[in-house]
Amino acid sequence: MKIGIIGSGAVGLLSAAYLSKNHEVTLYTRRKEQAELINAGGISLVKGNQESISLHLRAEDKPAYTEPLLIVTVKQYQLEDILNALKKSPPKTVLFLQNGMSHIPLLQTLSAHRVFVGIVEHGALKLSDNTVKHTGFGCIKVSPLFPGERLNELPVLKMQMDHFPFEYIGDWKYMMSQKLLVNACINPLTALLRVPNGELASNPMFNKMAESVFHEAMKVLSLEKGQEEWEHVMAICRNTAQNRSSMLKDIEEGRMTEIDGIIGYLINQAKTEKLEVPVLHFLYQAIRGMEG
Amino acid sequence: MKIGIIGSGAVGLLSAAYLSKNHEVTLYTRRKEQAELINAGGISLVKGNQESISLHLRAEDKPAYTEPLLIVTVKQYQLEDILNALKKSPPKTVLFLQNGMSHIPLLQTLSAHRVFVGIVEHGALKLSDNTVKHTGFGCIKVSPLFPGERLNELPVLKMQMDHFPFEYIGDWKYMMSQKLLVNACINPLTALLRVPNGELASNPMFNKMAESVFHEAMKVLSLEKGQEEWEHVMAICRNTAQNRSSMLKDIEEGRMTEIDGIIGYLINQAKTEKLEVPVLHFLYQAIRGMEG
Repeated sequence: MKIGIIGSGAVGLLSAAYLSKNHEVTLYTRRKEQAELINAGGISLVKGNQESISLHLRAEDKPAYTEPLLIVTVKQYQLEDILNALKKSPPKTVLFLQNGMSHIPLLQTLSAHRVFVGIVEHGALKLSDNTVKHTGFGCIKVSPLFPGERLNELPVLKMQMDHFPFEYIGDWKYMMSQKLLVNACINPLTALLRVPNGELASNPMFNKMAESVFHEAMKVLSLEKGQEEWEHVMAICRNTAQNRSSMLKDIEEGRMTEIDGIIGYLINQAKTEKLEVPVLHFLYQAIRGMEG
Repeated sequence: MKIGIIGSGAVGLLSAAYLSKNHEVTLYTRRKEQAELINAGGISLVKGNQESISLHLRAEDKPAYTEPLLIVTVKQYQLEDILNALKKSPPKTVLFLQNGMSHIPLLQTLSAHRVFVGIVEHGALKLSDNTVKHTGFGCIKVSPLFPGERLNELPVLKMQMDHFPFEYIGDWKYMMSQKLLVNACINPLTALLRVPNGELASNPMFNKMAESVFHEAMKVLSLEKGQEEWEHVMAICRNTAQNRSSMLKDIEEGRMTEIDGIIGYLINQAKTEKLEVPVLHFLYQAIRGMEG
């Protein structure tokens, strides 16, 4: 199958390295130098102490997007140009792998395409422009955004492979909400306090702060099973105790963060539903103020 | 006049250096080494490029507190032993110079004494155990805690001197509330965000955070003149733009902070008055969690 992967950060490189073993992959980069580097030397995939090189793929800095299956791995705030290109393109299958939910209304306008949203549960670290480390083996959960998809026609089922599985989820809204809840509780707080994930579970005061964020987010997302969801968030903090969240890294490196897609989305939803979310406002302002 | 100054941080050293010019001052220190250092070499007072040495004072690490006028300059959370000693002592005049307001109910039990509370509007930096820099010329505002004090008998009026004036304020509650409001808006936020005071005025997002803290604090303190008070807080941020607040320094140096006396007091008041203060809770938890 011809697959186009748009965005060459950690998730883009990881997906390209794995999927190019069985498929004809084109990786779309933003910078020409990165495309040339990958075309010359392939992508190095590091797993534990082993390193393998994927040579059977092509990298491209011109946004042709001609493949029938596209996997979009850029950040939510980088989607605009891609969505404009897709609006002029013949029908395709497109899988979007962004954090947050503020981009969902934009995706819902792509009704000419088969649109899937997904969440990445792999750990991946970009070591250089053509080297990615697979630091945590998980899966990519995918779900159709529009109703009426037939399970036996799903392209994800043709992409299954060891160490890089896909999992089908029927209800995209629940899947995305649950991930958003986790991101809302962990990412902005760890960035604000400049601590690794584990401290939100182990420091009793930081734990109370996470609980306040959790309660406001739950209220907005109308999720049930409060205790279960809270334990899920805390389990992730403990299981990734040493990790520094992506938002913390963004702040430390003076980059823009995904705060708009995560807390910004919750604040907008709260406004629509006339709910008070003072702690989410406070947290949003802190991260926006800290951005480089 | 015999004056005992309790506590030998920046404010204690500054007060001792000035007041010993016209009065018989005993400075009470916690550590014996500091007392010995001061008894041997006096206190160096740095103003701009000039340095003068005050030799005419005595330092003491034993808490005798025999002087008829005591000025208490320790932090609010270090008051306990001093209050216990005062309860057994014959009537004195005692001036308390703590930040926050959570200690006020404790002071109200000292009805055998003449009790004054005061706020320090000097800038002072402790450079060593016997060197203090007077970085900002202001005043010390003082107000009697119990009604019925006669103005012409006030000891503060006998302590006036150049560069170290005292100002009499009739309403201690308004004086302390206004200072608390300033401290509540500036200290914890600058410590949490690790920024100098000016950023609360110049960074639009941090400014909104300060505004949220301000509104919750105003509600609890029942202060009127909202716009005027807000402009006062912002003027202080701009006038001390490069300063790092005492709470930020405490956090950076792994010390305990004055959060209990400031935000802790507001939270307790809010509880009594059944007011919701979600942002104050969040801020309190952040600082307590960050404390060394």
